[in-house]
Amino acid sequence: MYPKTFDDLIYEFQKLPGVGAKTAERYAFTVLGWSDEEISELAETLVNLKKKVKKCTRCGNLTEDELCEFCKNSNRNQNIICVVQNPKDISVIESMQQYNGVYHVLDGLINTQKGVLPDQLNIMTLLNRVNERTEEVILALDPTVEGETTALYISKLLEGKCRVSRLAHGIPVGSHLDYTDAMTLLKAFEGRKSS
Amino acid sequence: MYPKTFDDLIYEFQKLPGVGAKTAERYAFTVLGWSDEEISELAETLVNLKKKVKKCTRCGNLTEDELCEFCKNSNRNQNIICVVQNPKDISVIESMQQYNGVYHVLDGLINTQKGVLPDQLNIMTLLNRVNERTEEVILALDPTVEGETTALYISKLLEGKCRVSRLAHGIPVGSHLDYTDAMTLLKAFEGRKSS
Ligand SMILES: [Zn+2]
Ligand SMILES: [Zn+2]
Repeated sequence: MYPKTFDDLIYEFQKLPGVGAKTAERYAFTVLGWSDEEISELAETLVNLKKKVKKCTRCGNLTEDELCEFCKNSNRNQNIICVVQNPKDISVIESMQQYNGVYHVLDGLINTQKGVLPDQLNIMTLLNRVNERTEEVILALDPTVEGETTALYISKLLEGKCRVSRLAHGIPVGSHLDYTDAMTLLKAFEGRKSS
Repeated sequence: MYPKTFDDLIYEFQKLPGVGAKTAERYAFTVLGWSDEEISELAETLVNLKKKVKKCTRCGNLTEDELCEFCKNSNRNQNIICVVQNPKDISVIESMQQYNGVYHVLDGLINTQKGVLPDQLNIMTLLNRVNERTEEVILALDPTVEGETTALYISKLLEGKCRVSRLAHGIPVGSHLDYTDAMTLLKAFEGRKSS
């Protein structure tokens, strides 16, 4: 009933998580009200996204360069590695403003039911990074079955190679790291235990 | 903390209605997971939107042609004109599958407080459309202060020129037309009264 291009846009918006027909329609009408410049801006940003944003060759975090901002920052302790599920979790940890090490992004968690096996995750690169200078690997993974399984798997791999710790309980079991507030997370960091 | 292009995208998504930082971030991560083709598709649709989608020169509805699908459809009664606030309301009325006339899109309602005056709306074009063949003008406007003000204004303009009716009560007062279900709307159409 709407012109094709307008319907196309509604269809596109419905691909976003949690966006149904009504919301997609509302977004499309909003965008229709934008100036040519505003629309081009969004279109260009989308095109640039795939062109410019890639993974840090060392840690797997998002970056527009070879190395991400943490890996190339000499003020960060490059010998303490915090392992996270995805780049979003880094932004939660950074919001504590207390952690001064670097990161390693697994890009998921082991999930045998969904067929996510260790070799599909960024785990071998972690093993290769760890050396005699490595002081600690902190496993900051969700306190879920998948998170625990992954933590256990990595702990075993790193056994005898360096200190491995996990976040203390404090994060409610079954919840997600990126919904945790900075204070709770800070407590979990402070109370972390050897794995 | 994210790469610039990624932050840009989060910023862009926050311009959509009801989208906060967390939701925008979630959308950006979703889009990052799309294939190049999927991203180009959205970008192209956005660019096409302003290029292709324009207003019907007769009724103000959205179209990619000179006239919209209703104005150029000879199976619709071109002498019954349903006046609506915006193109979204047309889709609600069409969902009844009962109305066979055409439309006129005002592109807003008179709102003296917000400085929306009659001459900023698509009202003169309505007056120019109405002629001796016009059987009826149905004012399908929101049952709000602005809707009533606009309906009254148009009724006076068309006085003596043709039959003017308004939707019957049945639509809860203070609510919006595009949140009305098809059955309620059908009842309101059937019970419409002369204005
Ligand atoms: Zn890095
Ligand atoms: Zn039209």
